[in-house]
Amino acid sequence: MNVILLDDRDFTDTGTVRLSGRRVQHLNQVLACAPGDELAVGRVNGKLGRATVTKISARSAELADVVLDGDPPPPLPLSLVLALPRPVVMNRLLAAVTSLGVKRIFLVHSRRVEKSYWQSPVLAPENIDQQLRLGLEQAVDTVLPEVRMSKRFKPFVEDELPGLIKNGPAWLAHPGDGVSVPERTGPSAMLIIGPEGGFIPYEVERFDELGVSRLSLGPRILRVETAVHVAVAKVGGLFK
Amino acid sequence: MNVILLDDRDFTDTGTVRLSGRRVQHLNQVLACAPGDELAVGRVNGKLGRATVTKISARSAELADVVLDGDPPPPLPLSLVLALPRPVVMNRLLAAVTSLGVKRIFLVHSRRVEKSYWQSPVLAPENIDQQLRLGLEQAVDTVLPEVRMSKRFKPFVEDELPGLIKNGPAWLAHPGDGVSVPERTGPSAMLIIGPEGGFIPYEVERFDELGVSRLSLGPRILRVETAVHVAVAKVGGLFK
Repeated sequence: MNVILLDDRDFTDTGTVRLSGRRVQHLNQVLACAPGDELAVGRVNGKLGRATVTKISARSAELADVVLDGDPPPPLPLSLVLALPRPVVMNRLLAAVTSLGVKRIFLVHSRRVEKSYWQSPVLAPENIDQQLRLGLEQAVDTVLPEVRMSKRFKPFVEDELPGLIKNGPAWLAHPGDGVSVPERTGPSAMLIIGPEGGFIPYEVERFDELGVSRLSLGPRILRVETAVHVAVAKVGGLFK
Repeated sequence: MNVILLDDRDFTDTGTVRLSGRRVQHLNQVLACAPGDELAVGRVNGKLGRATVTKISARSAELADVVLDGDPPPPLPLSLVLALPRPVVMNRLLAAVTSLGVKRIFLVHSRRVEKSYWQSPVLAPENIDQQLRLGLEQAVDTVLPEVRMSKRFKPFVEDELPGLIKNGPAWLAHPGDGVSVPERTGPSAMLIIGPEGGFIPYEVERFDELGVSRLSLGPRILRVETAVHVAVAKVGGLFK
């Protein structure tokens, strides 16, 4: 937790802040905070800044002198379409891609996604929110990504994807041929990554029809988790 | 397991192969192999090819017609110096960086590495070997990386590192300033990544004295696991 995220509901009428739960645990157990200590804080979807601890107990804390005057780092203009990974990987990836600055994540079905994954508690809104916050707290960012889910492949690809990729290039990271070093050809990009085992040929053809390009991640077959990191680094690197 | 790795000891005098353990489980449970099936195989530190299943039971399998005629993918000419991460992360990273083609991994101590990490069973040779094999099996590669450990920072940096970086550039991925897009200036490269919290100033100065450059991974603070992936993708991408 490199920044303490503050929600609107944490602010009192007088502009001080009351914290509870996980953040107070962190203040006590990791930072060993005492009254008078200054903290790095950020308002969710707002500015970064600092605040001073005025009271702290095992269960709650109060902050005053909240100054929010810094911009969060610029968002990575990269959206991610991800065939729903298995839950434990999904959980890590939500926090990881958030820490990398991705602000739009689309979780979609694919033939090789096990249907049971869609029942996982990992997909509960509270857990998704928690993982995104872990990513922001790590990265010192404030802007929560948007996560959307499509439990059916075809409606997503036919009805949603065309609109999502009209303002920039879209790449499918797929084993086999493809460009190794992508070029920046628009203000934003879309990155599409399949399940373990890859999208089936029918699915790949649907992407081809929409003009999605192929991105090569090298001569080796990578796990989804590794592939997502490498692909985001490659395509995200274009916008630095 | 996208390839079955064969060790010298698996070969019989007549050139057939006897398998047991984890690989037989995979043949039974994932591939549902039967006699006559052809498998993708690779000889550890040797060639890739195929073989035919001749016998299979719950506990052992025999392969014949072993043809090893393909080269493994070229190694990534990138060595990695990693401040020893916490064990669970270390385990995942060994397999992940192996799957990316890294062939030399140096695990070193740093002030912010908890000393207890050096006692972890994750560092037992059998476990390291297992993680490296998981990475090779994923990536369809045969060449086992070399993993070396230095439980003391100063002797590593003073006695070993200078020789390791004399044939190419070395980059330290460190929060703050640094080049965002590295240039290829030699046939191989060295990438150095600190612990959670980063190398301490004394340690950073030792790298500076050796002419190690700073690599920026962007404006956000990343977890070690994320940082390793992104940095390997950035620097490794130079050799594609």
